[in-house]
Amino acid sequence: MTSVENIQNLITQFIESQDFMGTPVELYAPIDYTMRQRGKRMRPTLALLSCEMFGGDIHDCLTPAVAAEIFHNFTLIHDDIMDEAPLRRGLETVYHKWNSNIALLSGDTMLIKAFQYALCTKKSCSHQVLAELCKVALEVCEGQQHDLNFETRDDVTLDEYIEMIRLKTAVLLGSVLKIGAIVAGADETDMKAVYDFGIALGIAFQLQDDIFDCYGDVKVFGKMPGGDIADNKKTYLYLKALELASADDKRMLEGYFKMPKGRDNKKMQAVLDIFAKYHVREIVTEVMTSYYEVSLRHLAMIGTPEEKKSVLREYADYLYNRVK
Amino acid sequence: MTSVENIQNLITQFIESQDFMGTPVELYAPIDYTMRQRGKRMRPTLALLSCEMFGGDIHDCLTPAVAAEIFHNFTLIHDDIMDEAPLRRGLETVYHKWNSNIALLSGDTMLIKAFQYALCTKKSCSHQVLAELCKVALEVCEGQQHDLNFETRDDVTLDEYIEMIRLKTAVLLGSVLKIGAIVAGADETDMKAVYDFGIALGIAFQLQDDIFDCYGDVKVFGKMPGGDIADNKKTYLYLKALELASADDKRMLEGYFKMPKGRDNKKMQAVLDIFAKYHVREIVTEVMTSYYEVSLRHLAMIGTPEEKKSVLREYADYLYNRVK
Repeated sequence: MTSVENIQNLITQFIESQDFMGTPVELYAPIDYTMRQRGKRMRPTLALLSCEMFGGDIHDCLTPAVAAEIFHNFTLIHDDIMDEAPLRRGLETVYHKWNSNIALLSGDTMLIKAFQYALCTKKSCSHQVLAELCKVALEVCEGQQHDLNFETRDDVTLDEYIEMIRLKTAVLLGSVLKIGAIVAGADETDMKAVYDFGIALGIAFQLQDDIFDCYGDVKVFGKMPGGDIADNKKTYLYLKALELASADDKRMLEGYFKMPKGRDNKKMQAVLDIFAKYHVREIVTEVMTSYYEVSLRHLAMIGTPEEKKSVLREYADYLYNRVK
Repeated sequence: MTSVENIQNLITQFIESQDFMGTPVELYAPIDYTMRQRGKRMRPTLALLSCEMFGGDIHDCLTPAVAAEIFHNFTLIHDDIMDEAPLRRGLETVYHKWNSNIALLSGDTMLIKAFQYALCTKKSCSHQVLAELCKVALEVCEGQQHDLNFETRDDVTLDEYIEMIRLKTAVLLGSVLKIGAIVAGADETDMKAVYDFGIALGIAFQLQDDIFDCYGDVKVFGKMPGGDIADNKKTYLYLKALELASADDKRMLEGYFKMPKGRDNKKMQAVLDIFAKYHVREIVTEVMTSYYEVSLRHLAMIGTPEEKKSVLREYADYLYNRVK
């Protein structure tokens, strides 16, 4: 089995060998800028790990895996326009470094490039890979629209929040794992199991992100915690606190989340106090852990020998125990 | 041969039979709103006409033809955000009727839907159709970026303008004709000829649009002429006038096109006077006609019997002689 590190190196080398430039330069420079950033590259990593677990050749999976990475970066570029976000991964966003028209158009170009990469999958499975990419791409847009809708809604439920992060984050993890399985020629049952593994892992991952956003270490993240609170984001933490709080605390919390967006120390401390009073951090950590455990149960159901699953399990464990 | 009218009816029926709605409604209602508008549907019409000219079954061409129509509508929705345009086809734009975030995200969704429709082409040619759609989609984005760049450039040449409209408008006409040929199983030489026919026709079409924008009848178009002048658009008319004008007239024209965007009667009359002085309308009409004639020469080179070409030629003639 190829180690996670070697798989990540292979992906990095492949991406670095690609030419993302073109004419006009205003359109392509933002794509090059984005694709040259060294993120976790979690999506292509999962695709290749899945492909190898099912006995496929990971080299056959490189173009669809990178298609998913390009797609993911496209979503970030367009999300940053909608959020008017100046920073991402500690670097200027395309929206901020260039402008919103360029971010819009270079984002569109990346979405098209994602399909072009997916189309380069070996002929026998390119149709199935593209169908999966279309399906998941629509779901991610749906998730983002739900997220936008939540901004002006006062009646968001915990179930609706989970469904939103399932669409916005988890389905892409499920789909890249499924794409790895498609390339490897896995059977339908295993494809479904690895997809479900990704969904549960993705929900756990997003809940963990919500916890980090609230309680993360500025030295580790390079950004002040509490961004979601400043932005009035209705995360699982907030929604759980609303559910548990007394009528007075609920009224206070809702009041704070109706303030204009932006950092306010008094608001931050008051919200964190309410979260602490109702043990929200511990509760969300438990929910996160239960999704992680569900993901491992799906992994256990996959019909390949245990030793083939070890690298993927190790990577899931690394994500679960990550500190950033 | 199926008449243009029957082909258009078939496309209309097919589009009307499609369900563009979904959840969340904020994401899909703008798509439904856009796709229900009765435009010329020139792109799917050309695809089906080409398919039939090459002896293909037009029903096999419906999904890729509609993919091109969905793609075209996606570009309009995103262009309208960039132009902050309130009206399109006499109706409110998505950007204006909803908001820019919804226009951004429902536009993205349409782009994905376009690929999903193209993927439904019969298996034997779906790969080639998708590759063509990816290629042309990138080119259209490049054309739009050139167009944006022109706004702040003072040295745009006539050749650059033609290259911009080739990318922004003409390549999609070339590609839909090629897609019709792919579905019909035409040979490479004929595919190239019908593509080149579309490119020349597309450039003629856009030049005609520029003329209409300047000199069109408000009663026919439902909008005041002179929108491009009000927006300081560097069209072929403007660039040709700059080329021919005396130093004084050139300075005056450039001065007017540095004014803030918006209607100004004095500017409008002065610009039209300069255009008239240098016979710009007649010159651009001649250039347009020469592109139309080039397109007919490419059509003549196609290796199918003359009677098979008659409906496509008739449609090109209709476009050339259109009044709106």
